[in-house]
Amino acid sequence: MLLNDLGERDFLDELARRGLAGPIGDDTATLEGGRVVTLDSLVEDVHFRLAWTSFHDVGYKAAAVNLSDLAAAGAQPEAFIVGLGLPGATTLDHAVALYEGLNEHGVPVRGGDTVETPVVIVTVTAIGRSTRVPGRGGARPGDAVVVTGALGAAAAGVRVLERGVQGADDLVTAHARPPVRLAEGQQLAGVATAMVDLSDGIGVDAGHVAAESGCRIEIVSEQLPLADGLERAGGELFWAMGEDYELLATLPPDAAAELSFPVVGRCTDGSGVVVTLAGEPIDTPGYEHFGHARRRP
Amino acid sequence: MLLNDLGERDFLDELARRGLAGPIGDDTATLEGGRVVTLDSLVEDVHFRLAWTSFHDVGYKAAAVNLSDLAAAGAQPEAFIVGLGLPGATTLDHAVALYEGLNEHGVPVRGGDTVETPVVIVTVTAIGRSTRVPGRGGARPGDAVVVTGALGAAAAGVRVLERGVQGADDLVTAHARPPVRLAEGQQLAGVATAMVDLSDGIGVDAGHVAAESGCRIEIVSEQLPLADGLERAGGELFWAMGEDYELLATLPPDAAAELSFPVVGRCTDGSGVVVTLAGEPIDTPGYEHFGHARRRP
Repeated sequence: MLLNDLGERDFLDELARRGLAGPIGDDTATLEGGRVVTLDSLVEDVHFRLAWTSFHDVGYKAAAVNLSDLAAAGAQPEAFIVGLGLPGATTLDHAVALYEGLNEHGVPVRGGDTVETPVVIVTVTAIGRSTRVPGRGGARPGDAVVVTGALGAAAAGVRVLERGVQGADDLVTAHARPPVRLAEGQQLAGVATAMVDLSDGIGVDAGHVAAESGCRIEIVSEQLPLADGLERAGGELFWAMGEDYELLATLPPDAAAELSFPVVGRCTDGSGVVVTLAGEPIDTPGYEHFGHARRRP
Repeated sequence: MLLNDLGERDFLDELARRGLAGPIGDDTATLEGGRVVTLDSLVEDVHFRLAWTSFHDVGYKAAAVNLSDLAAAGAQPEAFIVGLGLPGATTLDHAVALYEGLNEHGVPVRGGDTVETPVVIVTVTAIGRSTRVPGRGGARPGDAVVVTGALGAAAAGVRVLERGVQGADDLVTAHARPPVRLAEGQQLAGVATAMVDLSDGIGVDAGHVAAESGCRIEIVSEQLPLADGLERAGGELFWAMGEDYELLATLPPDAAAELSFPVVGRCTDGSGVVVTLAGEPIDTPGYEHFGHARRRP
């Protein structure tokens, strides 16, 4: 059995089953005293291409995707620890630009490790504090599902780059510099029954909540806020492809009514995720490492 | 200017000078509340070769080198967060074996990230608690220099592997499964004026203490405890080549006299590190990423 055949999720489940890692259901680990820790790596030619993304933006994004995990935990960031793998022929200017991007978020960058690698690999450990981590396992039938912002721009930006389309800079920027929803995460954490960030695609990410909560999640695609200029149907389903780094939260209906986030679906009895378009269930794309789905970028 | 020309240390100094990372003098970052965090990566064909080291031992060592940094901070480990990069053609059995090695230390392995990479890269963030982190900047003239155990076996083990020598399993094991000096680190942390682990070679590692403390460190090589079967002179200076993961601490002389660790040198006025053999200063090898010194393994 190769990891390519198994997929990342099944690999992680296998590790948990053997007692070798866990809890891995959340993207953050919670320690005593309200500290949360998360780790994410960006790998050249898997998560970004240097032809499309500057070293500065690679650093910015490596920090942003970790802050997104902290946001989903309702946390306030405290520090980054950075593991940087660079080819030996990398210029100092490029390496410094990457660190400038990491620093753009205003979170202190603390010591780490710098090693020589065949491709650029940025591994950021982000540490923060949270008074309440919603996790993924608390969604209940009847809960509303909300998202914190418009979807689809990042995936459309990748397509723009692949096709060499001119004049779609907003989409390209959305891919290189994802949003960081720390304030929204802290606001939602007080009432959310579950919360995740939309990194792998709404079908995949909502699927983790459904599986760990033991409920079914129904997403009505017409209710999803879309990035400017994107179509909901009839073309690529960019809004389902991930890398948006908006948050998805499940909330009791009264809490959802008090907040201003768009309601995009609901939790029901059952299992799995159903995304509907014009009332009919549709298949949504999504990302998983080690095969099983399309590669990005 | 390429990183190959600059070297890791000068790169880190440049980042600190620009305010982009720091404090990077220590291998651990200290957070509020006595938590310490460290991050180290092991990269295939830079730090290990799969022809020589099993996946299990790669996991064991990736955890051990981080525990060694916690030991130098006098810390008790609390959790690992693991970033694992594997080629897609890695078997599940190998990936599980790596995680079994990580788990052998009895420290909980918490969630992390698994990504597809061209070579095996294991990045471990280790989190612990310490009541006193000696750091590298407190050594004073008159302090004694002690180490926690015998040196040279790991580097000799690499040479054994390179030459295909049979019957030297102890040396090979020393390279694959370095010691973890947590108890010694906690004992020394109460009195040490500075403490580091010997990962890059005693000349390099003591050099960090000398530079940050503003003193000179004199090491008498005849006083260094050597691994069984190794020669002090006349051949390769394996004891100077690093990867021993013993601790080196500077202590006030009275504290050194009360403890049982071998005294291998002293701090004096001045700067830099001098290692003597038969009373004469000698050049010692040591390791730095991005050129400047020999590669390992």
